[in-house]
Amino acid sequence: MEKLLVFGHQNPDTDAITSAISFAYYLNQIGVEAEAVALGELSDETAYALNHFHTEAPRVIKTASNEVKAVALVDHNEFQQSVSDISSLEVQYVIDHHRIDNFHTANPVYYRAEPVGCTNTVIYKMFKEKGIEIPAELAGLMLSAIISDTLLFKSPTCTDEDVVVAKALAKIADVDPNEYGLAMLKAGTNLDDISSEELLDLDAKSFPMGNKTVRVAQVNTVDFQDVLKRQEELISLMTASNAAENYDLFVLLVTNIIDSDSTIVAVGDGVSKAEAAFEVRLENETAFLPGVVSRKKQVVPQLTEAYAK
Amino acid sequence: MEKLLVFGHQNPDTDAITSAISFAYYLNQIGVEAEAVALGELSDETAYALNHFHTEAPRVIKTASNEVKAVALVDHNEFQQSVSDISSLEVQYVIDHHRIDNFHTANPVYYRAEPVGCTNTVIYKMFKEKGIEIPAELAGLMLSAIISDTLLFKSPTCTDEDVVVAKALAKIADVDPNEYGLAMLKAGTNLDDISSEELLDLDAKSFPMGNKTVRVAQVNTVDFQDVLKRQEELISLMTASNAAENYDLFVLLVTNIIDSDSTIVAVGDGVSKAEAAFEVRLENETAFLPGVVSRKKQVVPQLTEAYAK
Repeated sequence: MEKLLVFGHQNPDTDAITSAISFAYYLNQIGVEAEAVALGELSDETAYALNHFHTEAPRVIKTASNEVKAVALVDHNEFQQSVSDISSLEVQYVIDHHRIDNFHTANPVYYRAEPVGCTNTVIYKMFKEKGIEIPAELAGLMLSAIISDTLLFKSPTCTDEDVVVAKALAKIADVDPNEYGLAMLKAGTNLDDISSEELLDLDAKSFPMGNKTVRVAQVNTVDFQDVLKRQEELISLMTASNAAENYDLFVLLVTNIIDSDSTIVAVGDGVSKAEAAFEVRLENETAFLPGVVSRKKQVVPQLTEAYAK
Repeated sequence: MEKLLVFGHQNPDTDAITSAISFAYYLNQIGVEAEAVALGELSDETAYALNHFHTEAPRVIKTASNEVKAVALVDHNEFQQSVSDISSLEVQYVIDHHRIDNFHTANPVYYRAEPVGCTNTVIYKMFKEKGIEIPAELAGLMLSAIISDTLLFKSPTCTDEDVVVAKALAKIADVDPNEYGLAMLKAGTNLDDISSEELLDLDAKSFPMGNKTVRVAQVNTVDFQDVLKRQEELISLMTASNAAENYDLFVLLVTNIIDSDSTIVAVGDGVSKAEAAFEVRLENETAFLPGVVSRKKQVVPQLTEAYAK
């Protein structure tokens, strides 16, 4: 069998990067040649995790069909979140924990998704099922992804299984999950050196809703003002992005990882959909959403429902 | 959690019926209330298997949203092969071994598909992973599905895993897989009591290809003439079906389960696509396809490719 490239979604977060690394390792162990790559540069949080566990960053690719015929997708399935030439590639594996949309194959595929907090929780189970040992540094990376996706187990996406798996991985990696986890999350909130354009692109995804497209970016912080001091510039960039990419709505979710709350900034023709979705009035394009930390559970389904009305 | 209905595709074959039974049993064992139902009447083959293993047929439903909010799909994922009101239901589980197409969810889902010969091979692995014991009669039904889908391990869709799992199931069920399997397959080839309309509907699926729809029906036999003696009537029914349902092409695959060959009957505007797909000239709307037994591996991808040109 020919080599597979394994990658997570565009604007990769810690799970997208590390699940590519862990699943490529899994494939190699079961005799499938595979290489983990990335569809974008590392965030500071992910760089912290890779550095802590002495692992090199996967190389960044723009297209895959110039190198391989077949790929494995991790932490995503929607084609608009994938590599640009996904339609010319055969998808042989998908390991994920998201809704399924805008995904199809010509041939039978290995697809494994579970409604858990993190792709690496699924991959951990696959290692267990095959009796494959997880090296300590890989366990540390997988743990980092669970901490990242569940905001240290506080997100409503976090399941009992994520917690159990994280504990097992922390033991293999020999770290304290809370101490290590908070340091890693904080490393991801230093926004001083990045531009507002970069901030909006750090962890942003597009979602088809009805016949519109909605862009939802998320950024973690320990102080809302770190982000909101740039509000005017952000709004003008989001407005320009809506015009250039034909987004009906651009929502920036600013999440306080200490308090587990968010403030949203929403711009576009669809702002009334955002107000309906979150049952709030926007003031200066912003609204405070107490207890909201999860784009997947507390933002996208609510917007999807508002667009279905 | 509320009750789930579990069902396979329309025009259910042995895997569609028995994987609903085995997966509903699995869900019950992990504490999820679930009932196996069917989207159509049993074939003679499936009736033989259920009778042999003392199991009642699942009741047939036309719609599900009048009973439940959420469902589990087995042995299919494409909405046009599913229950008529699938769009108003939440899909919580999919266990399958087909391509993925025309499938989407609003929320994260448990999806498990593997490129193996039979859905029950995947379900067997899930039983093993959870350490759930499989009762002898259920093992017999699961074995029946593997035999049916792989035509007694002769189909190119049959993988090593299917063979290993079938052997394990045969041991639990205490039957000889070859002896039992041939008797079961033969029970499914008695077409004397069924009309030509019914014959075309026994195991038929629709596939979107490009902007067209192609219908592919399959029937097993031990003698081509059993089917082809009705050729004129079949062609006129297929032509009427194309007109009524707007199919571009209707292919009937008549498979000799002893010799592992097929004869196709192809009708519709798309006959040239069928000729291109199988590199044959149709004569009297028919062509002999040596070695072809699998719709999924040897018919649908070839037609899909022909329609992409």
